Amino acid sequence: MPIGAEELAASLPQMNLELLASCRTFIVEELRSARRFLKRAGYPYPIDDTDFHLLNEHTTHGEVGGYLDAIARGENVGLLSEAGLPCVADPGGMITRIAQRRGIEVVPLVGPSSLMLALMASGLNGQSFAFNGYLPVDKSQRASTIRRLEERARRERQTQIFIEAPYRNNQLLEALCTVLQPNTMICVATDLTLPTQYIRSLTAVKWQKERAKVDLHKRNTVFLIGE
Amino acid sequence: MPIGAEELAASLPQMNLELLASCRTFIVEELRSARRFLKRAGYPYPIDDTDFHLLNEHTTHGEVGGYLDAIARGENVGLLSEAGLPCVADPGGMITRIAQRRGIEVVPLVGPSSLMLALMASGLNGQSFAFNGYLPVDKSQRASTIRRLEERARRERQTQIFIEAPYRNNQLLEALCTVLQPNTMICVATDLTLPTQYIRSLTAVKWQKERAKVDLHKRNTVFLIGE
Repeated sequence: MPIGAEELAASLPQMNLELLASCRTFIVEELRSARRFLKRAGYPYPIDDTDFHLLNEHTTHGEVGGYLDAIARGENVGLLSEAGLPCVADPGGMITRIAQRRGIEVVPLVGPSSLMLALMASGLNGQSFAFNGYLPVDKSQRASTIRRLEERARRERQTQIFIEAPYRNNQLLEALCTVLQPNTMICVATDLTLPTQYIRSLTAVKWQKERAKVDLHKRNTVFLIGE
Repeated sequence: MPIGAEELAASLPQMNLELLASCRTFIVEELRSARRFLKRAGYPYPIDDTDFHLLNEHTTHGEVGGYLDAIARGENVGLLSEAGLPCVADPGGMITRIAQRRGIEVVPLVGPSSLMLALMASGLNGQSFAFNGYLPVDKSQRASTIRRLEERARRERQTQIFIEAPYRNNQLLEALCTVLQPNTMICVATDLTLPTQYIRSLTAVKWQKERAKVDLHKRNTVFLIGE
């Protein structure tokens, strides 16, 4: 599904929308938004005759065992993720893992990845990069993780990507400015694909001044550090 | 641009094709395929009246200085990459870096990333992953790099992604089977988006047998290892 409220034509190839019609069963993160997406995407069957299985951070391994049963009957099963790519910083991986183990063909489709959009626009090294998920919440643990990632970014020229709970974004940027070496690059990529999109790469020392001008509070943001 | 010879509608959102019309200057990896792509995508202006700047692995920093001059005149400049996303395992990063330094807005568009397609379908951990580019060619250096990446994959639960020159793919898979612990997962993702697409995740010990059945020679392949 799209990352934000953008038009489907801005983030999904037309083929994805056509392929929806080949599935009568979907594994989804949230029922309501999945139904809304299918309607918006022109899904040709009645939503009430469509099977949905929930897969989110609360789903247990035991629950998902039967989610692929329709495949044994020769049908396709669709995997839909909220805001971005299934399995990338997303719970969908539990089901592709089972599919791979059972020898079921998994067909990935092109779609929006906030991590890749941020990396593309950052100007930081895209020949080597790592996504690290969320940093620790505890202040001193977070500082030591930031130092460790900076060290790796420098030694291996590997851009380090991470995210934060949106209501802690401003604090994270402050911590980055405090902990990182003055000339380490920080890219802040906010509201990707939205009209308010903001993507800026500056050294840590320049962010010290710049960050007063940007409010990241409750805006989905990808952070990148590198050289 | 698409990764393979697939339909544009399979890997590019319709909006990307429409946005081409907002650019009269393009920075491209290869002139001939860029022209062919623009024609195929319905670019509405005569190709001969369009400005092209070359940006590939041979381009020097000095050459690209003037590539963004049209932006000072209030125009857009498009960045087109062969087979995949600009700046991700791709030379395009040189120009986005300059744009960020000059405070020029960089607008990333959704498109196909073989790395993300492979990761999505692999069943390996997508909460933490790293792309490492090419491994060393020298046999013993390659083995020690594989061991180092396996160690990191285990200790940090970070999926390690890498690529190889396509004519050395079979040798790399052999090396992985030999060097990795028997229960380490290897995903081989080949010919992504093509009709011959093949994506398989198995333990190193299972690949020992399986690899006789798959010829990766000269087929674009993404390799992933993890738990």
